[in-house]
Amino acid sequence: MTKAWKVEPTESLRVSKGFTLADVDTGATPGFTGGKKYGEQVLETGAEQLSELQERLFADSRAGGTKSVLLVLQAMDTAGKGGIVRHVVGAVDPQGIHHHAFKRPTEEELAHDFLWRIRKEAPGPGMIGVFDRSHYEDVLVGRVRSLAPLEEIEERYGQIVAFEEELAATGTTLVKVMLHTSAAEQKARLAERLDRPDKYWKYNPGDIDERGLWADYQDAYQIALTRTSTETAPWFVVPADRKWYARAAVQRLLLNALKGLRLDWPAAEFDVKAEKARLAAS
Amino acid sequence: MTKAWKVEPTESLRVSKGFTLADVDTGATPGFTGGKKYGEQVLETGAEQLSELQERLFADSRAGGTKSVLLVLQAMDTAGKGGIVRHVVGAVDPQGIHHHAFKRPTEEELAHDFLWRIRKEAPGPGMIGVFDRSHYEDVLVGRVRSLAPLEEIEERYGQIVAFEEELAATGTTLVKVMLHTSAAEQKARLAERLDRPDKYWKYNPGDIDERGLWADYQDAYQIALTRTSTETAPWFVVPADRKWYARAAVQRLLLNALKGLRLDWPAAEFDVKAEKARLAAS
Repeated sequence: MTKAWKVEPTESLRVSKGFTLADVDTGATPGFTGGKKYGEQVLETGAEQLSELQERLFADSRAGGTKSVLLVLQAMDTAGKGGIVRHVVGAVDPQGIHHHAFKRPTEEELAHDFLWRIRKEAPGPGMIGVFDRSHYEDVLVGRVRSLAPLEEIEERYGQIVAFEEELAATGTTLVKVMLHTSAAEQKARLAERLDRPDKYWKYNPGDIDERGLWADYQDAYQIALTRTSTETAPWFVVPADRKWYARAAVQRLLLNALKGLRLDWPAAEFDVKAEKARLAAS
Repeated sequence: MTKAWKVEPTESLRVSKGFTLADVDTGATPGFTGGKKYGEQVLETGAEQLSELQERLFADSRAGGTKSVLLVLQAMDTAGKGGIVRHVVGAVDPQGIHHHAFKRPTEEELAHDFLWRIRKEAPGPGMIGVFDRSHYEDVLVGRVRSLAPLEEIEERYGQIVAFEEELAATGTTLVKVMLHTSAAEQKARLAERLDRPDKYWKYNPGDIDERGLWADYQDAYQIALTRTSTETAPWFVVPADRKWYARAAVQRLLLNALKGLRLDWPAAEFDVKAEKARLAAS
């Protein structure tokens, strides 16, 4: 087996100074050494690794550790957020996952600061949190649809950076992913939903309205990505026209985040010999 | 491939009139036509079915459906609740799972009725809820450890039955499972945890104290199982000394519950032709 990643996605997909979203090739497979078949194999092998690393993270929290991981997923409709959750996150023990899909804010949520509802869903110690959409909606749809005065939206970027620093300071490693597809690919995927009765439920006429604002969304992403990609919480833009690539890349980002925690199994907090004797006598 | 189940676990494992926990053989494999290898194959095939049925349930809720499923897991320590979550529930899209492990109640929880914290974790429409321990702790450890006056505990059985009727009336199908192992099997599993440094974190010296009350717990289970196994929300006692059997049986119980909902993919709530035209023009 050759080495799957010639360049780690942690490097090749990272949003750094000078990043331009419009320059990203959504059909490319940066850093990966093979094609679809190999990508699927790599995903399968990685699933076991991810599952074991998650268990270590969970075990660490039982021994008082405070570490957690938060995967933030942002994308235009049909880019494959759901597939990432099912095929990448799904490899992990459900017990260790805190998944939350952020919908249009409720009246109660709107009455609070935009980060109020987000804070409530931050992963606890030992957990892998998954945000399907997130606080970034408030600078994406918020900006495109003018849901708040521009000055307010402008302030949010800094608030987000501060919020994420705070999460990191309390032990959360953020993995922020934008799944990036082309408008043409979106068209094909929406068409499939309209062709298959088992996919109708995923289709929403409002998706076409949003699609009409494609360029505005790309602009809003460009601004959000560059203003909030920090050393502490960098953004990764994952080309997602090829689903197998996007899944392998996000899995790799998660694996690297978990490996970076360097977690061992916690030591026994009891006298092993004494407990063996107690058990034998029981 | 032969038929895997000669008798459905929905029938053979059900707690009905005259049930006696002490008569259950924890090493048996009731209703299943093969051994471990076949059981593992069946589990794998069932995983795909479970995954598809879950998606239908989820889709149904998007079209306004109110149905949900709630798997309640109760067991003595080491009986394999965690393995059920990982290997059975883990087959399903994490997006459609609401998992909650009930721990020793907090001060706030104790200040409320015992069902208060339970209600908050009931699955929403379209979800498969998983309770790792549950309101039954309040009539199990509650009874064994005299955590409340006996008259109060005696009242709880009726309150539980009423609560579960209420859940069922609002669309939730309950699947209540007791994983049943022998004391000898528990001893072997605890010994393994003490032999493997990667399992230390799962060991708790308090487990031996609970183990000392084995007979009291069996009595408390006998009472709880017979008083709360209703037509609406029956109990299933799953022999769990053989992990492969317990997993196959719980998966089958879930599959039967989901099939019983007879869910089709929801019809389009929009004009498919008109949407195709809008998409083409976009």
